[in-house]
Amino acid sequence: MSGRIATDYEIKDSGNRNMSASYTEAELPYVHKVGKPPKQDLLKEIKTTLKETFLSDDPLKPFKDQPRKKKFVLGLQAFFPILSWSRDYSFSKFKGDFIAGCTIASLCIPQDIGYAKLANLLPQYGLYTSFVPPLIYAFMGSSRDIAIGPVAVVSLLLGTMLQNEVDPVKQKHEYLRLAFTATFFAGITQAALGFLRLGFLIDFLSHAAIVGFMGGAAVTIALQQLKGLFGIKNFTKKTDIVSVMRSVINSAHHGWNWQTILIGVSFLIFLLVAKFIGKRNKRLFWVPAIAPLISVIVSTFFVFITHAERHGVNIVRHIEKGINPSSVHEIYFSGPYLTKGFKIGVVAGLIALTEAVAIGRTFASMKDYQLDGNKEMVALGTMNIIGSMTSCYVATGSFSRSAVNYMAGCNTAVSNIVMSMIVMLTLFVITPLFKYTPNAILASIIISAVVGLIDIDAVLLLWKIDKFDFIACMGAFFGVIFVSVEIGLLISVVISFAKILLQVTRPRTALLGKIPRTSVYRNIEQYPGATRVPGVLIIRVDSAIYFSNSNYIKERILRWLTEEEETFKDHPKVEYLIVDMSPVTDIDTSGIHALEELQSSLYKRKVQLVLTNPGQTVLDKLHASHFADHIGEDKIFLTVNDAVLTLAPKMEQA
Amino acid sequence: MSGRIATDYEIKDSGNRNMSASYTEAELPYVHKVGKPPKQDLLKEIKTTLKETFLSDDPLKPFKDQPRKKKFVLGLQAFFPILSWSRDYSFSKFKGDFIAGCTIASLCIPQDIGYAKLANLLPQYGLYTSFVPPLIYAFMGSSRDIAIGPVAVVSLLLGTMLQNEVDPVKQKHEYLRLAFTATFFAGITQAALGFLRLGFLIDFLSHAAIVGFMGGAAVTIALQQLKGLFGIKNFTKKTDIVSVMRSVINSAHHGWNWQTILIGVSFLIFLLVAKFIGKRNKRLFWVPAIAPLISVIVSTFFVFITHAERHGVNIVRHIEKGINPSSVHEIYFSGPYLTKGFKIGVVAGLIALTEAVAIGRTFASMKDYQLDGNKEMVALGTMNIIGSMTSCYVATGSFSRSAVNYMAGCNTAVSNIVMSMIVMLTLFVITPLFKYTPNAILASIIISAVVGLIDIDAVLLLWKIDKFDFIACMGAFFGVIFVSVEIGLLISVVISFAKILLQVTRPRTALLGKIPRTSVYRNIEQYPGATRVPGVLIIRVDSAIYFSNSNYIKERILRWLTEEEETFKDHPKVEYLIVDMSPVTDIDTSGIHALEELQSSLYKRKVQLVLTNPGQTVLDKLHASHFADHIGEDKIFLTVNDAVLTLAPKMEQA
Repeated sequence: MSGRIATDYEIKDSGNRNMSASYTEAELPYVHKVGKPPKQDLLKEIKTTLKETFLSDDPLKPFKDQPRKKKFVLGLQAFFPILSWSRDYSFSKFKGDFIAGCTIASLCIPQDIGYAKLANLLPQYGLYTSFVPPLIYAFMGSSRDIAIGPVAVVSLLLGTMLQNEVDPVKQKHEYLRLAFTATFFAGITQAALGFLRLGFLIDFLSHAAIVGFMGGAAVTIALQQLKGLFGIKNFTKKTDIVSVMRSVINSAHHGWNWQTILIGVSFLIFLLVAKFIGKRNKRLFWVPAIAPLISVIVSTFFVFITHAERHGVNIVRHIEKGINPSSVHEIYFSGPYLTKGFKIGVVAGLIALTEAVAIGRTFASMKDYQLDGNKEMVALGTMNIIGSMTSCYVATGSFSRSAVNYMAGCNTAVSNIVMSMIVMLTLFVITPLFKYTPNAILASIIISAVVGLIDIDAVLLLWKIDKFDFIACMGAFFGVIFVSVEIGLLISVVISFAKILLQVTRPRTALLGKIPRTSVYRNIEQYPGATRVPGVLIIRVDSAIYFSNSNYIKERILRWLTEEEETFKDHPKVEYLIVDMSPVTDIDTSGIHALEELQSSLYKRKVQLVLTNPGQTVLDKLHASHFADHIGEDKIFLTVNDAVLTLAPKMEQA
Repeated sequence: MSGRIATDYEIKDSGNRNMSASYTEAELPYVHKVGKPPKQDLLKEIKTTLKETFLSDDPLKPFKDQPRKKKFVLGLQAFFPILSWSRDYSFSKFKGDFIAGCTIASLCIPQDIGYAKLANLLPQYGLYTSFVPPLIYAFMGSSRDIAIGPVAVVSLLLGTMLQNEVDPVKQKHEYLRLAFTATFFAGITQAALGFLRLGFLIDFLSHAAIVGFMGGAAVTIALQQLKGLFGIKNFTKKTDIVSVMRSVINSAHHGWNWQTILIGVSFLIFLLVAKFIGKRNKRLFWVPAIAPLISVIVSTFFVFITHAERHGVNIVRHIEKGINPSSVHEIYFSGPYLTKGFKIGVVAGLIALTEAVAIGRTFASMKDYQLDGNKEMVALGTMNIIGSMTSCYVATGSFSRSAVNYMAGCNTAVSNIVMSMIVMLTLFVITPLFKYTPNAILASIIISAVVGLIDIDAVLLLWKIDKFDFIACMGAFFGVIFVSVEIGLLISVVISFAKILLQVTRPRTALLGKIPRTSVYRNIEQYPGATRVPGVLIIRVDSAIYFSNSNYIKERILRWLTEEEETFKDHPKVEYLIVDMSPVTDIDTSGIHALEELQSSLYKRKVQLVLTNPGQTVLDKLHASHFADHIGEDKIFLTVNDAVLTLAPKMEQA
């Protein structure tokens, strides 16, 4: 009875300071009673659960015990973090922000023009999206390193989903309006998740699935650029690798334009070399950052003097001058396009959010500051809602530009303001200069940008650490490149959920054996040296017991018993079945039910059920359901060793 | 270094037989090395996972090492269990089965007629459904106690969903055809789940949600019977309690028929008293079992001699004579009704399956025999597919009749065959006698039958054991009675899933303290006597660390640290943060990532991360990802006590 779990919290002292949790018979004088904690009341329990679910970061804590005026100021600061950090802002910080802002502006301008094409929009909409949203974000966001604007994956996703509904060429105006509608609802989705503190929902897209999805999207985007890079005229509208490669090969004889290929490929090599230099020497990060702008300037000048556009080299031709026009009245608030825009917006908004939050977290942990995920979502959502009213499409944080921003030494979101101002100047003054920019250059810039999204190291790590994660990653990757972006996304989500469900449906169980000359019981499969105790079967359940797995656990335990009896027919009959519950963190009514059924099945087989080391929550429920009384409190022990010593002392020595 | 987890499996013996897992400094000579198990290869890992998921019951085991002919016989027996048990069948077994079969037949005939009305079908379809499906089940099913036929909840669900699509009065024939189509697809769904071994999917409907749903459905069904019981003519088609009560009250002045009420209420009292007697004395189980048939006979005779039907008492009037006609050509295999029938069939099939499997499991565990869930599903599915071609609607196991079957001493599925034969005789011979049976009697019979579905004891137990389960139960209950059956069902499913997701998103964490004069570390909240070790913060994570919770766990641990530092400003600075990983059964790449981020955040705060007692799977992944090398292998200990003794021996004594 030494290690039996009793009902009163009391530890008897016998002079020895150190008492082991799994003590031996020689130490028997220590009766180690483990307490049953006072019962929590329902309200407190629900309150704790709700708080941990929705308010785990305790956002109202600073408001406590403050005068009303202070509360108002704090509330304003919560929505506009700029109000709190701007007071410590200094010229030296501005210097870093200014340099970083200029660097990301030089990177974003050519990217914006290319990404807008991915979304089947005119080039100026990319630039618009780099003007308004970063400004809003600078006031409301709390990340110091993120660079806001249009990004490749969201542009592609939006473009694919929009053209499934509306033809971007024949119904140009409807397409544009649907794009703004989707952007509006993307913003609403993001802000709503933040306001309702449901930010944790995006955690359900697993890291592995995101790596695969991003890699697949990068390959798809790069393949799409073959059109611009090779100057192909009749290009498929599908995004899967088979259709695209067929398009490319079929057009090999008459559709390729060698001048375009020459320009595109030579600048692509230049960009990739620049990228390589930046990667090798972190201090030369600015080389890949300004390379795209240099490419644009040089190639534009080259086309302008050689008039290559007359030899089949496609050029940008026209970018609207001036800043964002209003698009409030373009958004569909009724009609059939409303629901379509809503659906597309929700999907695009969630993907944009996932990307932005991942970036925000990465840099916040690198500089060790706290990022409030829900507040971030409100900021991102607001920025897209306002964006949708000022001719922008879905903006979010860009991986590549945020990294450049960080390396260029940004200190605050002011670098976004600087970038935004430069984009504004571009829109006002220099857009006509882009007239002769060849499309092949934009294709090269996009390819060199998305190459960074293919994270081979991460995939190798997945393979090494967790094979299931690797399969999830590959599923998403191949789904995107062989079928479509949406299917790839769907596969990611389904695999992520399947993993969660598998985890809760089929928990591990292990047969324990005694490691010779110790009191430690470990998994027999992993420790071939561990020995069975004759007449006793010891099984550890490695999960909380819930309705989703209770039946499986019950049947699995009975199966262990049957297998044992069949395999070792000459051994003494199993008299005790010890279930080690150390890892069982919780149990619900179905779980209790399963234990009851297990006990009655065992009773018919003349085997006694013994439990060891149930956690406090579990112990509570065993008592509440009277199952503890049912099997007898003397059948619940603190450790497996105690149970074996008490119940089968002779067997143990056999 | 005493308890450090080393990389080789080796236990050094120093003469003492019993070695404690959490030993003290005095015992230092025992260097307890815990082994790193050999790596499993990918194929084996995937094979194990797939096997545990889909073939956890090892159905192919008996086929191993058998000659081909034997394999064929075993295969036949697997599909038709009757082939194996019929060889041991004896007359004494038949006696039990015969009595049980007669008892459940007397119970099912009046119930069938009433349940058919719930599904808006003519009474004979209820009887048809008690003839063919039980016969098929007897050959293919493996439960010995289940009684097959139409049941109240599925009839109501089917009736509600069907009348949303087709008007049962105006489009009589289409309605009937859609019912057969739904039944066909219900069968296909059930059989497919069994064949694909996806039976575990029904475990995702939690016990608590089922209790609530069943209770709600019982109340709804009882309320629907007020129409028959009060003889109301204009009755609402909605099933929610508000509409029904309004219907009843509005018709109070002119719509009620006192003769009907007199017959209905007096027999309802008789039935409930019979039920009460059966409950009080288990040996009188046959009293409630034959009471319905007695009521039907007596009331029919009474109406026949008094001609009460001329005074507004509604009677059955006509039941088609003869056994099931074929309905193969009635099933919609094309057209718009195909998809509608399919959807309704899937839902009805799953609910029917849940009920049948729950009944099967309950009785199997009472008599201690194994039930193969997947094989059961194939049997139930086949029976409904054949049923749909012989004018039956969805049949499944009935709670009330199975209990009677069990108590009447059934031994095998032969009792279902006996019942089926009696129903056949009824269809051939005595259906005309039901002409004068008053509808009020059928209403009373249904009410007294569904009362048993309201399981107040189970609800009280849910309240006592698990408050969240209780909320889920109430959600489903009120969803059914205040909105509709489908909404209640939807609420059950959503709540069940929400519970799983909550479990994996917001795991518990606990701050550990040392219980004085022991080496045991326990949750400080539950053991107010446990003391903090100055300079050391010990946190236990109570869940596997996966992508869905890794970020939360990281932030929660950092929050513990912040709170600790703010609350105990006068204490020595926290130098070590010990994460006790005993309950962490698994970790994935996102989890490793979170640990890395945690470590780098702690490094910036000058706190060292220490891990104790990681399981083998976790240890493997810590090594595979080189995180173990990263934090240093000397920072991984076997127990919290070892870690504290090694790292902070002075602090511990302070």
